[in-house]
Amino acid sequence: MSINVPKISESTFVDWSTGTLSGPGIEEGVKTLGQLEGIFRDREAWRSMAPETEVYRVRYWRPVPDGTTGGVFWGATILYPGRVGDEYFMTHGHFHAIRDRAEIYATVTGTGALLLMDEEGTVTSQEMKPGTVHYMPGNVAHRVVNTGAEPLTFLASWPSDAGHDYGSIKTAGFGKRLVLKDGEPCLV
Amino acid sequence: MSINVPKISESTFVDWSTGTLSGPGIEEGVKTLGQLEGIFRDREAWRSMAPETEVYRVRYWRPVPDGTTGGVFWGATILYPGRVGDEYFMTHGHFHAIRDRAEIYATVTGTGALLLMDEEGTVTSQEMKPGTVHYMPGNVAHRVVNTGAEPLTFLASWPSDAGHDYGSIKTAGFGKRLVLKDGEPCLV
Repeated sequence: MSINVPKISESTFVDWSTGTLSGPGIEEGVKTLGQLEGIFRDREAWRSMAPETEVYRVRYWRPVPDGTTGGVFWGATILYPGRVGDEYFMTHGHFHAIRDRAEIYATVTGTGALLLMDEEGTVTSQEMKPGTVHYMPGNVAHRVVNTGAEPLTFLASWPSDAGHDYGSIKTAGFGKRLVLKDGEPCLV
Repeated sequence: MSINVPKISESTFVDWSTGTLSGPGIEEGVKTLGQLEGIFRDREAWRSMAPETEVYRVRYWRPVPDGTTGGVFWGATILYPGRVGDEYFMTHGHFHAIRDRAEIYATVTGTGALLLMDEEGTVTSQEMKPGTVHYMPGNVAHRVVNTGAEPLTFLASWPSDAGHDYGSIKTAGFGKRLVLKDGEPCLV
């Protein structure tokens, strides 16, 4: 084969059955319950759980430096099933540092909800299940909640100059919470 | 279920086993051999084939208007197997109108090659097979070639203000071609 190809072992790969991203340039970040202090409503329940419990794990592919104009990043998140009291495990949630930058999520496995909050605090949600693709416009914070019994995995694509603003969510919260109520996920 | 969710029939969906994109906001474009005049080297072979032969089919999800700053688009391409003479079926290939805009491809089914050409005409290629993820930096033209016997399907994500420049490829060509030679794909 005369094609000038990179060795396949050097390529970035996604496993379409699990949403797992792998390859030499992949970075990984883990969020534990301990790192998510103040995010869940029931502080007593939070304190009673092991702080090293993993809530989610994100793999990123950033082929160009963070902040590059015109670039696109690609990531894969595994959000584990679980609850803190009656509240489902969820991601921290963020706005983008450059507020008008959008993002796309595509669900690979599991079930849950995408919560969207605009800058006035209005929250809407979209059901996530395998194959659903979600657009998060600019100026809208986004958080993912696992309401099922299996890991919820999703792929993400976002502009490489978007940046992340976690502080606004940490300070002001997300407006609504997704809890287990009468055996059903309920937005309260 | 008290979650304010859009009815699932209104969602955008991707079928992870086939790479098919569906949903109410999806646009579709078809490229036939007739529309790809001048793209394949062997004009005699091209003339002898039915002009309505489909070479590829692209579905786009553009949730915000083309040209929106900070947005991200999502698409799915089916590139059929076939050859014009000894040259494999391929996409037209393009630069982005805003040259520094990047793009990501992820292969779902089939086998082939991604050809990349910088503005000096230097061409490199990357093998495509199910799961490979490819980054096309800004200022680099990109074309996909199906070297297999099955449809090559891939997902794409790119900035919504990137635009497309097909003209440069139409006029100047792509520098190298992927042909069948001695039973193997060969970049010439």
